[in-house]
Amino acid sequence: MVTPAPRAVATAGPVLVIGSGLLGASLGLSLRAAGVEVLLEDSSPTSLRLAQDIGAGVPLADRPGAAPRLVVVATPPDVAGQCVVEALRTWPEAVVTDVASVKEAVAGDVLSAARHERAPDFASRYVGSHPMAGRERSGAGAADADLFYGRPWVIVAHPGSSASAVLAVRNLAGDVGAFPVELDASSHDRSVALVSHVPQLVASLLAARLAEAPSEALGLAGQGLRDTTRIAASDPRLWTSILAGNAGPVAQLLRELSADLAELLDHLERAAELGPLRGGSVGAVNRVMEAGNRGVARIPGKHGGAPRRYAELEVLIPDTPGSLGRLFTDLGEICVNIEDLVLEHSAGQHVGLARIMVDPGRHAEAEDALEKRGWRLITHAGQTR
Amino acid sequence: MVTPAPRAVATAGPVLVIGSGLLGASLGLSLRAAGVEVLLEDSSPTSLRLAQDIGAGVPLADRPGAAPRLVVVATPPDVAGQCVVEALRTWPEAVVTDVASVKEAVAGDVLSAARHERAPDFASRYVGSHPMAGRERSGAGAADADLFYGRPWVIVAHPGSSASAVLAVRNLAGDVGAFPVELDASSHDRSVALVSHVPQLVASLLAARLAEAPSEALGLAGQGLRDTTRIAASDPRLWTSILAGNAGPVAQLLRELSADLAELLDHLERAAELGPLRGGSVGAVNRVMEAGNRGVARIPGKHGGAPRRYAELEVLIPDTPGSLGRLFTDLGEICVNIEDLVLEHSAGQHVGLARIMVDPGRHAEAEDALEKRGWRLITHAGQTR
Repeated sequence: MVTPAPRAVATAGPVLVIGSGLLGASLGLSLRAAGVEVLLEDSSPTSLRLAQDIGAGVPLADRPGAAPRLVVVATPPDVAGQCVVEALRTWPEAVVTDVASVKEAVAGDVLSAARHERAPDFASRYVGSHPMAGRERSGAGAADADLFYGRPWVIVAHPGSSASAVLAVRNLAGDVGAFPVELDASSHDRSVALVSHVPQLVASLLAARLAEAPSEALGLAGQGLRDTTRIAASDPRLWTSILAGNAGPVAQLLRELSADLAELLDHLERAAELGPLRGGSVGAVNRVMEAGNRGVARIPGKHGGAPRRYAELEVLIPDTPGSLGRLFTDLGEICVNIEDLVLEHSAGQHVGLARIMVDPGRHAEAEDALEKRGWRLITHAGQTR
Repeated sequence: MVTPAPRAVATAGPVLVIGSGLLGASLGLSLRAAGVEVLLEDSSPTSLRLAQDIGAGVPLADRPGAAPRLVVVATPPDVAGQCVVEALRTWPEAVVTDVASVKEAVAGDVLSAARHERAPDFASRYVGSHPMAGRERSGAGAADADLFYGRPWVIVAHPGSSASAVLAVRNLAGDVGAFPVELDASSHDRSVALVSHVPQLVASLLAARLAEAPSEALGLAGQGLRDTTRIAASDPRLWTSILAGNAGPVAQLLRELSADLAELLDHLERAAELGPLRGGSVGAVNRVMEAGNRGVARIPGKHGGAPRRYAELEVLIPDTPGSLGRLFTDLGEICVNIEDLVLEHSAGQHVGLARIMVDPGRHAEAEDALEKRGWRLITHAGQTR
């Protein structure tokens, strides 16, 4: 395979990482891999030890006299603001950032502390960060040097942040393979409410309907239900802490959704009473569906391009060992590049369906070649979408 | 590849399929492939011609004197009841079924018509069907003989359905490769409201938030948003007609969801006003998240087994032609069977992540072998979930 080109490292160490959970330890590993000196601090001696053992850095306590040039606060979000303020006090020469997933609250803590500080550059050394690289698992045990690779890293300067502090954080993002996106705190918080926090709560509210449902109904679950509820399996503790810090923007979006839902419900209840073609439910459902069509069409595809620019092969996968492997081997021999792939199966199903996105120019040929090799395809006219 | 064993065909033709859209034409193709005689009827001469041309059957008008033993009504759902009643009148010897995705309304039409019929077996010859095999595309052009293969096919008898009519429909489902699930009409309609109709509306309501959102926010969209809103791209016309027939069960579930949402919103609004740790939002978010955890855990996995019984390999995929193909070739050479696979990428990302589910007993070995071949893996302790 092609190995990425070696990285030019812009970050000057030592970097102090406070908090050695998933993000802190992954950051340490990644910076160490780039040859940057990393110091670690954690209120839990066990977590600190684990991060040290996996090679994420060395404890700050073992390097008396060390002077970090960059401090990264990677604590739980509800204490991030306080930790940033303490770091700005403790390390008057350092740029300080944090990786909490809500940014206005942290900046607020820094600016309110700055009013009581003598150092004029106190707040200017702070720039917020939000690497978009969460996972279902937590702790240094789940850490990986490649966690940030190819992910957006939001950089959140406040009006008093110095240009050199912004540059230091942008360099950090680039050095661990992320791509920087600059937003102000309020835009950031509203953006993550939209693309992350509200979808999380809506998925949980939807999945909650399944908790007491009859098993016979769950036996009919297909890919739609699986997709819409997948993230409802996320960790309640982590999300409770994230959402507590972003209640305003989340509430505003949920209020809008709630108003749409109330209108829809009103029409459906009248239709249930008066019959399917009365009560205005046809128009109400149509409005909701069309607004959904418009919304989902705006999600950028791979590399920000237009979604669905590939043609799709739909191949039935028998449930026998090695079927998928054989399919990919066959695709390789046919020399068709797989642009994207989705596997579908439903409960009780003895066969899966692979939807394989390929170059539209190669589609018909690939379909023929796969059928010649004995695969069953779902074929149809008007393939390219 | 392994070809499924030849099918023993239980359905005795001729079968008359009324309506030659996606489902009707696919059914015709599948029955024809099994050697069953298929007759077609459609109010649109063009649709009828297309279905005939692809080999789904011959027009009923071309076979004067033909006597179908089974009639399948595959019209749009809002006219299915009326078409079933007409078919029962026209073909007094035939078993009649329909494939509409809402069943109580159709059975209601049949039973109310039966009160005015002289034939005592009028309603007993009707049994409803709901093959769970929808697609985004419609029309005979999208038809495929394998559309029903491995999918649940719900069989909805009413208390007066004859045993032989039920058997004829069960045989039909089996002959096209589906597996039959028997439910009464009311359970069916509540079940599909839960696993299909409500998720559809919730996905649309969520995606509608994106319609007017700033592009900068959409640029941060990740896999969670993509999954929760994917089905919001569905056809409004089709869904409007489906939902019009199931307003009662859908409204009941949406009312429950709306009550949970109102409580959550109340706490979030108070938290936005009083600060993150006041207003009870921590407890409210936690309750919603935990109910979501319980709900999603009840969705059956592949073959109805416990979800997540595989270990997961997480492999970074460079965005270069052939990367995925090389990965699968390597996995084949290592002789690791791919049980399931999910590809993740976010906007602007120059690398994808493949999550590959494998036998937990082969996981460590596969991880080592892939790393030796130059792949970058996200590795961590406690891999098996």
